[in-house]
Amino acid sequence: MSDRRVLVNLRGLLTPDPARAWAVDRIPDAALALEGGRVAWLGRKEDLPAAWADAPKVDGGGAWATPGFVDPHTHLLFGGNRSGEFNRRLHGATYQQIAAEGGGIRETVRATRGATVHDLVASGEERLRAFRERGVVHLECKTGYGLELEAESRLTAAYAELQQRGWSLDVTLLPAHDLAPEFGGDAEANACAVAEDWLPELVKRHPGVARFCDVFVETGVYTAEQGRRILGAGKRLGLIPRVHADELSWTGGAELAAELGAASADHLMFCSEAGMKAMAAADVTPVLLPATTLFLGMRDWAPARKMIEAGCRVALATDFNPGSCPCVDPLTILRLGCLQLRMTFEEAFTALTLHPARSLRRDDLGHLHPGARAQVLLWDVEEMLELVYWVGEPYRPRFLTR
Amino acid sequence: MSDRRVLVNLRGLLTPDPARAWAVDRIPDAALALEGGRVAWLGRKEDLPAAWADAPKVDGGGAWATPGFVDPHTHLLFGGNRSGEFNRRLHGATYQQIAAEGGGIRETVRATRGATVHDLVASGEERLRAFRERGVVHLECKTGYGLELEAESRLTAAYAELQQRGWSLDVTLLPAHDLAPEFGGDAEANACAVAEDWLPELVKRHPGVARFCDVFVETGVYTAEQGRRILGAGKRLGLIPRVHADELSWTGGAELAAELGAASADHLMFCSEAGMKAMAAADVTPVLLPATTLFLGMRDWAPARKMIEAGCRVALATDFNPGSCPCVDPLTILRLGCLQLRMTFEEAFTALTLHPARSLRRDDLGHLHPGARAQVLLWDVEEMLELVYWVGEPYRPRFLTR
Repeated sequence: MSDRRVLVNLRGLLTPDPARAWAVDRIPDAALALEGGRVAWLGRKEDLPAAWADAPKVDGGGAWATPGFVDPHTHLLFGGNRSGEFNRRLHGATYQQIAAEGGGIRETVRATRGATVHDLVASGEERLRAFRERGVVHLECKTGYGLELEAESRLTAAYAELQQRGWSLDVTLLPAHDLAPEFGGDAEANACAVAEDWLPELVKRHPGVARFCDVFVETGVYTAEQGRRILGAGKRLGLIPRVHADELSWTGGAELAAELGAASADHLMFCSEAGMKAMAAADVTPVLLPATTLFLGMRDWAPARKMIEAGCRVALATDFNPGSCPCVDPLTILRLGCLQLRMTFEEAFTALTLHPARSLRRDDLGHLHPGARAQVLLWDVEEMLELVYWVGEPYRPRFLTR
Repeated sequence: MSDRRVLVNLRGLLTPDPARAWAVDRIPDAALALEGGRVAWLGRKEDLPAAWADAPKVDGGGAWATPGFVDPHTHLLFGGNRSGEFNRRLHGATYQQIAAEGGGIRETVRATRGATVHDLVASGEERLRAFRERGVVHLECKTGYGLELEAESRLTAAYAELQQRGWSLDVTLLPAHDLAPEFGGDAEANACAVAEDWLPELVKRHPGVARFCDVFVETGVYTAEQGRRILGAGKRLGLIPRVHADELSWTGGAELAAELGAASADHLMFCSEAGMKAMAAADVTPVLLPATTLFLGMRDWAPARKMIEAGCRVALATDFNPGSCPCVDPLTILRLGCLQLRMTFEEAFTALTLHPARSLRRDDLGHLHPGARAQVLLWDVEEMLELVYWVGEPYRPRFLTR
C-alpha cells in the first residue's frame, strides 16, 4: 500500500536548507508531499505538482510545520539522580568541590554500575518519551557512567536494545568520561586501558551499535595527548571522534578535534579563537550546551557569535545528564541560544535541527527537503518566534504520524 | 454551614514562618486544619488536636502542600505584544536603541491607548488564569502603559473590574513608567503633571482601587528628585511607594526607596552597597526580576546574595510585561533565583511567597501558619527541590478548593 499523501492547511513551513549553512526556508501556505516515509516535495500549496493532485490530503490544522529537533549531546543512560548533591550546590558547594569529595559523577557511577540492562532500558525509554513529546526525534547518546568494561558494556547493550525497540539514536562510547576510581588518579594507565582494552572489547561485543567515540579532555581528567590516543584507537575501530572540549578551562580541545577530523567538539566555553578557526577549517561542529551553563550557575556562556563569525556551523544540545544538566527540553535550549548565546531565531533553530544532524552524519534529518525522513512537527502558533518570546511557556508540538 | 476540614495524606508541608525572616518549616506527614477560609492549625498529623478529630478529611493524595506564590511585580495590563521588536533584538538591536527609535515601550503605549476597558479586562483575565494555573494566587499589578490620564484611568478601571470579578490583586499606579511622548522629553513638566494632576485624579475617580504608587527612576527617565516628588504626592493620597530602581545604571533608587519608607525597590541590578544597607535598615523589600535579565540577554544578575547578607528580605517576581519579560511562570523565577542569583531553594521559595506578601502588606498570604488564607498548592513530587532540579519541566500544582 502506498503511503503517498500531502500535508496541507499549514500556516507555513520552516526548514533549514541542507545545501546552505545557515539558510532557513520560510514558506507561507505550504504543502509537503510525502512518500515512503520521506519528503518528496515541498513548496507553496499553489505550486503542488500535478502528479500529487489526487494524493490523499492530511490536514495540518493551520499549524507551522518544521523538522523534528535533533539532540547531538546527551548522557541518556545512568542510574540514580543527583538532587541531593544539587541541594548542596545551592548552599554554596561547587561542582568541582563535590567531585573532589567523591560525590558528583562518582555517585552516578556507583548507581550505574549497580543497574541492570533492564533497569537502564526502562529508565532510558521513559526519558526518550519525554524527549519525543518535546519534539526531539533523534538523539546522540553516550555511555560513560560505567568507567569500567562491564558497566560500559551493559550501557552499550541497553542502547542496542533501545535501538531495536525503534528509538532513533546514535551511540557514542565514552568510557573516558572521567578517571575511573580503580586507577587511583593514574590518567595515563586509565587512558591506556580505554584505548587498548575497553574500546576494542566494546566494539567486539556490540558490533554495529556505536558510531562515535568521545573523551573528556580537561584539566585533572585527560590531557589532549591522552585524548588523541583514545580517539585514535576509536578511529581504528571505525568510530568517529567527538570531544568534550574546553569546558572548564582551555585545554586545546577544539584544536584536537580539528586535528583528528572529529565530528564535533562539545561545551567550548573556554575555546580559543585559534580553536574556532581550526574547527571551521576542519568542519568540526561546535556543540554548545547553554542549559549546563544555566544549571551550574556559571557566567561564561559559550561564544556562539564568535564561532559563527569564524565560519563554524554551531549546533546546540541539552547535555541531558543528572549532575550538570537534568534537562530534556529543546525549548529551553532554543531560548538560551537566542537570549544568552545571542543567536537569531533562525540560527538557533538550525542549530537544533540541521547542524546537529550533520554532525551525526545524518543527511536525512534536521530538514524537510526532498529525501528527508518524514519526521514533521506541527506547532499551533501564529509565528514560530513565539516559542522563544513567551519564555517559560511549555509549548509542545503535534506529530505527523503515518 | 461550617467549612471545617483537615487536609491529610500529605508527603509533607513546606511553609515560611512569618515570625522569622528566612525560616522555612518542613513538616513531614503533615496535616493542615482549615476553617472560615483560613488556616487554623498546622503540624504533624499525629499531633492533630482532639477538637479536629471528627472534622471532615480532605485527601492530599501524597503531595507536598505549600502556600500559593505571590508575585509582587507585574505589568499585567497592556495592549498588543512585542514579538516583532523581539526579533529585531535577536538580530542585534538593543532595548535602548529600539526605545530611542520610538519603538519599545512606545509601541505598547500606542496599543494600550487604543484599547477599551473591555479589551483590557479580557486579555487581563486570560493572563490571570495562566498565572493561577502556575500557582500564583496573588499579584501586584501596575498601570503605566497609558502615560496620560485617560488611558491610565482606563487601566485602573480595568483592574477594578478584575478585582470585582474576584481576582486577588493589588494595584499600583505607575503613570510615571516612562516619559510621555506629549511632553517632548521634558521630564520636569511630566513629573509635575503626574504628581499634581494625574495621581490625584486617578485616586478620585477610582477610590480604594490602588494601594501603591511607583516611578521609574533611571538615567534618561526620571531623576531621584523627580521620583521623590511623584512618590511624595502619592503618599499624601494614601499610596505606599514602590520604586523601579537601579535597573540599567545606578541612580540612587534604592537609597530613595529607603528614604521614603517604600514598600519595595525593584530590579536593582546596579544597586550600591549603601543602598542595600539602607533598604535593610528601612525594611524596604528588594524585588529582583531575574527573568528580565535572562530575556534581555544581560550578564549582570541582581546581587541577591549580597542583599541577603546585608539583611534584606529579598523577594522575586516575574516582571511580566511585553517588552522585557513576557513570562507568567513562577517556576522560571524560582529556578533563576537558585541557579543564577545563587539563592538556596528555601530562600528562593520564601522570596516567592512570604517576602512578596510582606512587601504588599498582606500578612495572610505567602505562608500557611494560623490565620493565613487557605490558598494551598499541592505538588505531586517526592521532594520540592525537584521543581528546580528538573530544569525545563513544566510542573503544575493542584489546588485545594473549598
